[in-house]
Amino acid sequence: MDALEYGEVIGLRWQVGPVGGPSKSPEIDCPFGGNQVINTLYLPELREMLSERNAEELREFCVALHPARTAEFMEGLTPAEAWAVLQYADPATRAEIFHFLEWDRQVELLADQDQLQVAALVSVLSADDAVDLLQELPAIRVESILALVPASDRRSIQKLQSFAEGTAGALMTTEAACLREDLTVRVALEELARQAEHLETVYYIYVVDDQNRLHGVVNTRRLVSAIGKPETRLRDLMETDMVVAHVLDNQQDVAQKVAKFNLLAVPVVDDQNHMLGIITHDDIIDVVVEEATRDVQKIAAVAPLEDSYMRTPIFTLSWKRGMWLAILFFAGLLTAFALRHYEGSLKKYEWMAWFIPLIISSGGNSGSQSSTLVIAALTRQEIASRDWWAILRRELITGLLLGGFLALVGFLIAWAITPSIRHAVVIPITILAVVLCGTSIGGTLPLLFKRLGLDPALMSNPFVAGIIDILGILVYFQVAATILR
Amino acid sequence: MDALEYGEVIGLRWQVGPVGGPSKSPEIDCPFGGNQVINTLYLPELREMLSERNAEELREFCVALHPARTAEFMEGLTPAEAWAVLQYADPATRAEIFHFLEWDRQVELLADQDQLQVAALVSVLSADDAVDLLQELPAIRVESILALVPASDRRSIQKLQSFAEGTAGALMTTEAACLREDLTVRVALEELARQAEHLETVYYIYVVDDQNRLHGVVNTRRLVSAIGKPETRLRDLMETDMVVAHVLDNQQDVAQKVAKFNLLAVPVVDDQNHMLGIITHDDIIDVVVEEATRDVQKIAAVAPLEDSYMRTPIFTLSWKRGMWLAILFFAGLLTAFALRHYEGSLKKYEWMAWFIPLIISSGGNSGSQSSTLVIAALTRQEIASRDWWAILRRELITGLLLGGFLALVGFLIAWAITPSIRHAVVIPITILAVVLCGTSIGGTLPLLFKRLGLDPALMSNPFVAGIIDILGILVYFQVAATILR
Repeated sequence: MDALEYGEVIGLRWQVGPVGGPSKSPEIDCPFGGNQVINTLYLPELREMLSERNAEELREFCVALHPARTAEFMEGLTPAEAWAVLQYADPATRAEIFHFLEWDRQVELLADQDQLQVAALVSVLSADDAVDLLQELPAIRVESILALVPASDRRSIQKLQSFAEGTAGALMTTEAACLREDLTVRVALEELARQAEHLETVYYIYVVDDQNRLHGVVNTRRLVSAIGKPETRLRDLMETDMVVAHVLDNQQDVAQKVAKFNLLAVPVVDDQNHMLGIITHDDIIDVVVEEATRDVQKIAAVAPLEDSYMRTPIFTLSWKRGMWLAILFFAGLLTAFALRHYEGSLKKYEWMAWFIPLIISSGGNSGSQSSTLVIAALTRQEIASRDWWAILRRELITGLLLGGFLALVGFLIAWAITPSIRHAVVIPITILAVVLCGTSIGGTLPLLFKRLGLDPALMSNPFVAGIIDILGILVYFQVAATILR
Repeated sequence: MDALEYGEVIGLRWQVGPVGGPSKSPEIDCPFGGNQVINTLYLPELREMLSERNAEELREFCVALHPARTAEFMEGLTPAEAWAVLQYADPATRAEIFHFLEWDRQVELLADQDQLQVAALVSVLSADDAVDLLQELPAIRVESILALVPASDRRSIQKLQSFAEGTAGALMTTEAACLREDLTVRVALEELARQAEHLETVYYIYVVDDQNRLHGVVNTRRLVSAIGKPETRLRDLMETDMVVAHVLDNQQDVAQKVAKFNLLAVPVVDDQNHMLGIITHDDIIDVVVEEATRDVQKIAAVAPLEDSYMRTPIFTLSWKRGMWLAILFFAGLLTAFALRHYEGSLKKYEWMAWFIPLIISSGGNSGSQSSTLVIAALTRQEIASRDWWAILRRELITGLLLGGFLALVGFLIAWAITPSIRHAVVIPITILAVVLCGTSIGGTLPLLFKRLGLDPALMSNPFVAGIIDILGILVYFQVAATILR
């Protein structure tokens, strides 16, 4: 199906139709699950509407449901069909539905469909989403699409493209409600009503001077409360103690700030306090989830992935894993040399080799528990490096409890399979010592890395594991030498 | 200082004063860092104002800054002083500042101060926050405080108290903007202006019938856009395809839904679709962070903590770690028996003992990388159990690449320290096999647990580690037996 078939549809002004009757929209009731099943059920109907060019029903389909659900129902369509359906939505709704399509599908549509229509869509997307999408297309296609986008939108997009990934600038969108401080509540509401359709959020109104410098913020609640006094000026309504992000701030810092201050959106400014854009709550949740995933990956000794697990090329994935695996492997090699050094003891006391994995893993597991708990608490800012003594004390007591218990079990087993009780005693003493090393090193090494300005999540677990591996061997043979001398 | 000294202050109507001049409020400029340093600087001034009972300046202090910053500046005060300062704020601001105090400080204030004043504060807190706080106080004190809270607020609080931790009901607040569907835009705006002060959010207006059953939602953007047509009824403006949460839904499901649909708040309903309350974006961010922390803890083989690392009692912490450590320890004991079984080989080929830690940790590390990556992808719903074949294929290829590299390095070292090249060859073959076992088991075991309805984050890493420990020993001695026969 040629997308141009629907050319006549473009350019018309779509009215937002009445909400679909009960036969079309699912029950208001709890919409849990089920969606996956329904999706394909709509496909025949949609295809029929398309082949009949049933504009009325297709328009209704586009507005009757929450855009996220409309997008779900379109999942089974071919790209050309999906594109054709989208042309029946008014531009704002089209952008919303498009936003909720799977990412791959979004890229596919931008890559393949008619440039003029794609440019029309790009100009109604929020600028930050447009930038992310265009990044996935070949430069030549981006250029030709941008050439067809209205100049003001193009400038927004090009401006955002200039900010580095991971900064506030790259995360923000330029569509914010900015009003002058001398406007009255009445005029502000009218102005807002006029702009609302093009804005991503109207929950905060940013008050700027004629140089576009940010002076204050009025939240909608306050504005609505002031309806009774329509001549009040924004200047007298605004709060001036604001939380702002600098355009070059790290996205994780911005997310923490938004969470701390319970904000719906944060304004982004430059050095001269010019209002550049806003970062909205949905982007913040994305950052929080993204950072949490990176932390989990780092804790497992994987350099954080840029993309999802399945989309990361296998060579990239292997490289990001291989770096740390190699470090751990070299620590492992050191244990081989250490054990070779203790060749004599191993020959004399054969049973000593049997307990090597048990001892090393006891130390390693308790160490990784400690370091992960401390890393998670550091990330949530529940603790800081200066708390090292309190943390070390906690970890030593925990180590005594855990090590004591494991030592007891270990002693009983060792008693059963070693030549004498004097031999058997080596095992519990070693286990207790190694678990204590594990919890105390695991608990404090992340703090040390943090203090040194290194990333505790990335560094701690491999280093704790490496140190404990070697230390475990040394402690084991030292204890044995002392007791069995 | 007796809190009653400030009794005369209570009950007065506080006007929101003008915003503090530049000498009082920090620059609008980027407020990064620095706060920790400034906090104590304000203390002498605050204490002076308190001792002079300088009502004007204290009132200004309470309104001049963002409530979160006001709370920060009060950090160094004693509880009694902090409480005294709070009495100079109007009730709504007092509740806001209080909300941003450290949690422990909040509890302390509720536990120690005059019951009448505490009850006045509790009645202006949002009901969900009040419930969380009261949970920390002795039952007898809660009872006497609640007796002093106005009946309608008390009912809200008691209703929320009845919902189990972790459900939508326990997370929601009852203060939502609910309006009848036959109201016009004009009346709705007036009504909203009247209610705004008592509501946690006005960004969505929930449209209900006379039975309080939820029929639709109007967002503020739409309402503001319709200012030009003031006689439009909410019924004709509302969207009926809504995303709702059931009161008994799991909080993690609710958070995922809010993130998916980019919502600022989600309404909570019961079986009969009665509107019970809303869950707002800030609570959602808290849930996302909380769930991420739990996932991290689970991946490190710690049963998730209810409280922060530092506040969890050491015995609880040891128990939550000990359970999993014990399981891992028993896996370790099995390796001791396995090695004992191979006593003969160990005696004949002394060098074999040297490489035991290296081989086990190579398999364990690559396995925990795989399982963590898969767990994180499962949590983000990027993959599902049905993708097992694609995942296994990825992991086998990755295992070949990683194992091949480690095997090569391992071979060179083994060649240097084992008696002959025939002996040395055992090491690389074993490493490759063990890494392949690690990646394939680590990649698929979480999927199996998921399919069985178990929690992959909690179960996978300990089981992968346990299985690989044993398997590593078996593979090692089997390979050696085959080659050196």
